[in-house]
Amino acid sequence: MKALVIAAGEGRRFRERGYKGPKPLYPLLGLSLLERTLLTLRAVGIRDIVLVIGYRGEEIKSYLGSGEKLGIRIEYVINESWELGNGSSVLAAREALEGESSFLLTMADHIFSPDVFKSLLAVRPRDRKIYVGADFKLDRVFDLQEATKIAIADGKIKAIGKELQEFQAVDCGAFHATPALFEALAEAQAHGEYTLSEGIAVLASQGCALVCDIGEAWWIDVDHPGDAEVARKLLLSHLPSRRDGLVARYINRKFSVPLTALLASTHLQPNHITLVSGLLCVAAALLFAWGYPIWGGLTAQLASIIDGVDGELARVKFLASSFGELLDSVLDRYCDGLILIGMALGAWEEGRGLVVLLFVALALLGAPMSMLMKEKFRTATGKPYLPEGEGLLVNLLLGNRDGRLFVVMLTGLFQSPLAGLVVLGITPHLLVLFRLRKMRALIAGR
Amino acid sequence: MKALVIAAGEGRRFRERGYKGPKPLYPLLGLSLLERTLLTLRAVGIRDIVLVIGYRGEEIKSYLGSGEKLGIRIEYVINESWELGNGSSVLAAREALEGESSFLLTMADHIFSPDVFKSLLAVRPRDRKIYVGADFKLDRVFDLQEATKIAIADGKIKAIGKELQEFQAVDCGAFHATPALFEALAEAQAHGEYTLSEGIAVLASQGCALVCDIGEAWWIDVDHPGDAEVARKLLLSHLPSRRDGLVARYINRKFSVPLTALLASTHLQPNHITLVSGLLCVAAALLFAWGYPIWGGLTAQLASIIDGVDGELARVKFLASSFGELLDSVLDRYCDGLILIGMALGAWEEGRGLVVLLFVALALLGAPMSMLMKEKFRTATGKPYLPEGEGLLVNLLLGNRDGRLFVVMLTGLFQSPLAGLVVLGITPHLLVLFRLRKMRALIAGR
Repeated sequence: MKALVIAAGEGRRFRERGYKGPKPLYPLLGLSLLERTLLTLRAVGIRDIVLVIGYRGEEIKSYLGSGEKLGIRIEYVINESWELGNGSSVLAAREALEGESSFLLTMADHIFSPDVFKSLLAVRPRDRKIYVGADFKLDRVFDLQEATKIAIADGKIKAIGKELQEFQAVDCGAFHATPALFEALAEAQAHGEYTLSEGIAVLASQGCALVCDIGEAWWIDVDHPGDAEVARKLLLSHLPSRRDGLVARYINRKFSVPLTALLASTHLQPNHITLVSGLLCVAAALLFAWGYPIWGGLTAQLASIIDGVDGELARVKFLASSFGELLDSVLDRYCDGLILIGMALGAWEEGRGLVVLLFVALALLGAPMSMLMKEKFRTATGKPYLPEGEGLLVNLLLGNRDGRLFVVMLTGLFQSPLAGLVVLGITPHLLVLFRLRKMRALIAGR
Repeated sequence: MKALVIAAGEGRRFRERGYKGPKPLYPLLGLSLLERTLLTLRAVGIRDIVLVIGYRGEEIKSYLGSGEKLGIRIEYVINESWELGNGSSVLAAREALEGESSFLLTMADHIFSPDVFKSLLAVRPRDRKIYVGADFKLDRVFDLQEATKIAIADGKIKAIGKELQEFQAVDCGAFHATPALFEALAEAQAHGEYTLSEGIAVLASQGCALVCDIGEAWWIDVDHPGDAEVARKLLLSHLPSRRDGLVARYINRKFSVPLTALLASTHLQPNHITLVSGLLCVAAALLFAWGYPIWGGLTAQLASIIDGVDGELARVKFLASSFGELLDSVLDRYCDGLILIGMALGAWEEGRGLVVLLFVALALLGAPMSMLMKEKFRTATGKPYLPEGEGLLVNLLLGNRDGRLFVVMLTGLFQSPLAGLVVLGITPHLLVLFRLRKMRALIAGR
């Protein structure tokens, strides 16, 4: 399926505030607004883009080129009369979308969770219909005053516009449309109406404008430069994963997310960050082995924080790769192992050789279990296992990687690597017992 | 979708050879022929069965009951005139399948790989069509003389019967049919023809009998008691997994498969076998720790062989469960760890404490890597990773579990657990390096 993206407007309010470039190229966390829209479309499987440009369109075209660098194909449509309104820019793409039974339509200056597009792809407009992505969570909509409201009756849109007094939802700026939209826009233009909303109003009057509830998915319309700061916070707030353990959620992410925000606008790749985190683990192991447990512990915790950054950077800049994830998890296992071996060597001097051997062995045995069980669970059920449902007591076992490295830091600070090995030699196995019970229930209850 | 299963015939040749029960209940590797057919259907997602019984039908009915124990629902149809031919038994189910647009049809006395049914489910017969499961690998067909042959032109069946001289494929006794089959059978009966093949011949004469190539999938028609022994060997030959390592393939399976064949007719469950294998690992660990490396090594190898039996038993008796697999892989990790710790304790006396610590740590770190990378690969690609493509040199690293336990045995026999730890502390990591390269290429090449 193709997507039609409108990037033709002037973005006057951005220029008034001193921004020099065309608005679709406004940078946010390492990507321009337009690139983010295109990469979000790619994330849901759409690689053929019809891009309507107008105001300073040549700059946009020379910036993006054929789209190959983004892994997509861009067909440009120039709308000379972009000043008339965004409806005229949509209509300009009529020929480029000839023969498509339906297509996604969205704006360069909106930011969407991929879930918005997934919802729109899940509905199939037939005949002359259009589905309008609709947000019913009105208390959550940013800048409700500026938003395009929609009034709904019997599942169909009855009225659409910024000035509606009675409305149930807000048009989030993403649509699953059929070519009938072009006819409707042409009809509206014949009456001197040049906005997209006015075209949709024509379809609504024919009973052809339907709503697609986007549910919990988030989005934002970046109208003012001030909105960009809100969008930035929104993007960052969605970086933590639901699979986070306790320490990751309440400590590590507080540091890693701002660090990611800082690094997003540099050319650093997630793999570089993985390397740094790995080297810090080697350093932590050596510090423990050489008898500097305090520094070893602090370095391990720093590595744990940095370990979150590679994933965040990959997500916020659409750089995630299957092999990257595989490599990351293999390296994590080696890092964990090295630190435990370093702690054992550091504890060796305390002279209880067999005790050290036993507990480092138990800790090494326990370290990969958390990940291994999660992977097996995913294979069995097709769904990820979420530790958040385990309850506080189990979370306090700190059996996930973030928790284990936190234990490394704490026992390092207390200069007792042996105590660390004892804790890490016991708690992961308690977690295994708990998870076996929990996973059995979850698998049986499917 | 429903399946129609015919279990009405007499099985005279079984009676002549002294078998007392009805043929569909003839036991083979712990399941009756009929149960195996029903469980194979369940394995491809079909749980609603219409079962036609005739000769000694009451015994079959009281044996299977409602089907609940097998996790299916059985609706019985009694064909009093089963002696006329299997076509009359199919026709007897006409009312029970009223309203179904299509259904699978098969025989209680055939044994199929689930892939045969998957192929038939992948085609959709429309209007008055029937798809006949067809085996084109004629050199592979067991008892070609007794088989029902089919002659094909332009993808349609032109003739069907046992006596055909010119034919391209063999009817394997499984069909994806529409209710038009019942009309065809009624028409054939009006001419005094009571076999299923004669009904299909009627559809063929109308251009409505199509072939569904079952490809490489295996099947067998159990006509004589002697065929049952061939079927048994066929079933056992498909127990080894394509994911086997070198030692599993060429050594362990030679022992585990016959053991599975022996245990299949008992009430032992796969979980019992898992427990035995686990206890053997504990024993191996203790034997190493107490200074009996020869016995420790042999016990570990025995555990490795038994470890194959639980999976084989689960597959041959349709007892596999998602949680069972998860539990099995967690226990395997613990067993591996215990044996390595036992070896370290056994090697401790040799006095080189730090060397022992270092290599047991490296071995513990390496042991779960093989499985972990395979799971991550499956998550990334949706496909299992098959070690068979790695080449002999890499296979000789013996980095999979079967190989590692073989190394344990060898070094045990040489009474050198320390050497075992050194090998197991190095080879798994070489395998990791190799697989990172291989998996990157496989993931990129998708």
